[in-house]
Amino acid sequence: MTDFGTRGWYVASLKGVIAQRCPQAQLLDVTHDVPPQDILSGAFTLAAAAPWFPSGTVFACVVDPGVGTDRPLIAGRADRWFFVGPDNGLLSLVFQRAARLSLVRLTQRRYWLSEVSRTFHGRDIIAPVSAHLARGCPVQRLGVPVRRYQRLALPAVRRTTTAQYGRLLLSDAFGNLITNLPSNLLAEPAGWQVRFRRKPVRVVSSYAEGSAGELVALAGSAGYVELALRNASADSALRARRGEPVELRRR
Amino acid sequence: MTDFGTRGWYVASLKGVIAQRCPQAQLLDVTHDVPPQDILSGAFTLAAAAPWFPSGTVFACVVDPGVGTDRPLIAGRADRWFFVGPDNGLLSLVFQRAARLSLVRLTQRRYWLSEVSRTFHGRDIIAPVSAHLARGCPVQRLGVPVRRYQRLALPAVRRTTTAQYGRLLLSDAFGNLITNLPSNLLAEPAGWQVRFRRKPVRVVSSYAEGSAGELVALAGSAGYVELALRNASADSALRARRGEPVELRRR
Amino acid sequence: MTDFGTRGWYVASLKGVIAQRCPQAQLLDVTHDVPPQDILSGAFTLAAAAPWFPSGTVFACVVDPGVGTDRPLIAGRADRWFFVGPDNGLLSLVFQRAARLSLVRLTQRRYWLSEVSRTFHGRDIIAPVSAHLARGCPVQRLGVPVRRYQRLALPAVRRTTTAQYGRLLLSDAFGNLITNLPSNLLAEPAGWQVRFRRKPVRVVSSYAEGSAGELVALAGSAGYVELALRNASADSALRARRGEPVELRRR
Repeated sequence: MTDFGTRGWYVASLKGVIAQRCPQAQLLDVTHDVPPQDILSGAFTLAAAAPWFPSGTVFACVVDPGVGTDRPLIAGRADRWFFVGPDNGLLSLVFQRAARLSLVRLTQRRYWLSEVSRTFHGRDIIAPVSAHLARGCPVQRLGVPVRRYQRLALPAVRRTTTAQYGRLLLSDAFGNLITNLPSNLLAEPAGWQVRFRRKPVRVVSSYAEGSAGELVALAGSAGYVELALRNASADSALRARRGEPVELRRR
Repeated sequence: MTDFGTRGWYVASLKGVIAQRCPQAQLLDVTHDVPPQDILSGAFTLAAAAPWFPSGTVFACVVDPGVGTDRPLIAGRADRWFFVGPDNGLLSLVFQRAARLSLVRLTQRRYWLSEVSRTFHGRDIIAPVSAHLARGCPVQRLGVPVRRYQRLALPAVRRTTTAQYGRLLLSDAFGNLITNLPSNLLAEPAGWQVRFRRKPVRVVSSYAEGSAGELVALAGSAGYVELALRNASADSALRARRGEPVELRRR
Repeated sequence: MTDFGTRGWYVASLKGVIAQRCPQAQLLDVTHDVPPQDILSGAFTLAAAAPWFPSGTVFACVVDPGVGTDRPLIAGRADRWFFVGPDNGLLSLVFQRAARLSLVRLTQRRYWLSEVSRTFHGRDIIAPVSAHLARGCPVQRLGVPVRRYQRLALPAVRRTTTAQYGRLLLSDAFGNLITNLPSNLLAEPAGWQVRFRRKPVRVVSSYAEGSAGELVALAGSAGYVELALRNASADSALRARRGEPVELRRR
């Protein structure tokens, strides 16, 4: 998964580096159309795609506006999958929901290309490290263990005893609107009411429960409350803006 | 083949589901840029691509505006290839020209994901069923045999003793204009004259026979008469509109 | 690598033809978004991507505005890789830098599709020939040996005793500006000064050496002098036009 787009030779050079070091790996694209440098969007895309892949899949992830600075690169095993990428929040959603996580900061240069540029760590470090993982190299050999990783810089949720005030984060490719409100709240028996633009929004358990044209709220797959229109784009229909307030109120 | 585009995680989740169930399958894209919900365009794209693929290829096809309604999903073996998709006309062109066809409506839930959403049957049904076919599961096990399938809702051809009145259906990616007139008529020895916008159009047997700038008619690969400009887009040059009349007249 | 784009069935039919003849080959895309018929851009893309791929990789290359004319098709082994495509300059950059090159004009029809169209040599000749190479067929069997191949029609560099006057050729996907000035000049100990728009440009050895906002010059990976802005698009920032003069002056 990258934000390189499909023009030029950037994706191809990643694939060449991996194919050279792990010829038996099947190379599948998550997407290369993450909006450029949009870590938030990349993190949600990865979190939505990863659970469908086979055990042992290695995800080589490059949305890396900090390339060339001293931001670390990390690799982790999270439950059944492996992830390699910059420590800038891109991998944080898959790490946060993992039951088991072992994580290293990449330091062992023997697993990198012999010459590392300052502008293309995707090709020079992330790709060859991913190939080594795909060949069965244990995560621990790739660097030094770390416990912390960068989380997404999401806007804070403001909490009172009776309400949680959140915001729209982004829309997915279906036009569903993802908020920063944790989705586990929706499961509480006491219950919360969702409100958007001063109106209540019905809570459902799947997109299909909505009536045509009815805005609904549900627990999204990345762990956050989402607003959705059945078989339509809530984003387009509502002309939503990133940062708009969404509210949970105790019933 | 889908109309998902390459943004987001939709194509990736299909591929993950297939790779998990059939790791030995090679996953190749026909295209994910079928215009959204354009069944006609998807059907022609599939019919043009399929003959070039190896025997035994399984085509997982998702252009499915009716997802969530009770439209059936089907799987068929048509000659040397397998096709899985909605029964909405998308597969009809490859089925129509098959010498041998065995077809089922998908009903055996054991071949689906354990949890089936109402909005993403591509991932939950079409992908796992395709993976089972790729592993060698016989078509018959996937559901109940059916004889009929939905054909494309093409505009009718009006026939007189001396003429056939058809219409432009769509343009392909080269800008060739595909009509609803059956191409076998062009092979009749008595012969037909093709007319478009009140002018005769020369009938040729390959695109390359046209002179520069000359509009020609020929039997297209999907079984219909096409209008074409050699090495140019007839669609752009003529500013053609879907539904424009095209006429065959007996010589 | 093609200029077909990803719509329609063109790329898919190439892949089908290859998969049918060499099922064990892994099919990877360099890109299908070479600007249509832009041989120069395709040649640079190929030259930048190829070195990263494993030994023995076969590159099937289709940017072929002359399809249907009598321009030859060629196949070559250049160092550790194989290349198949039209003899129109598309393969010339990878051939020029090869230490060992064996080259043939494709003439042996037994390695082509049995029916060859006049409009789609990518599918009918380049794809099956590439598949045969991937199966281990020696280059020599595919046709008659040739020594010459078409070079890119680059604008000429004008040389005086104290200066070389070149031009901007194209920008890559990062916005780096590639010139027609040979990059080996930059390595000469006596040294040259690079000038663009009447100002000197500092020569560096990697993109990362530039300061923020500073235009730098360096030896690019395709063998030509490039102008670049660190972590930014020189193309956008300077609104550069193909053909603008760039100058090397002896210090």
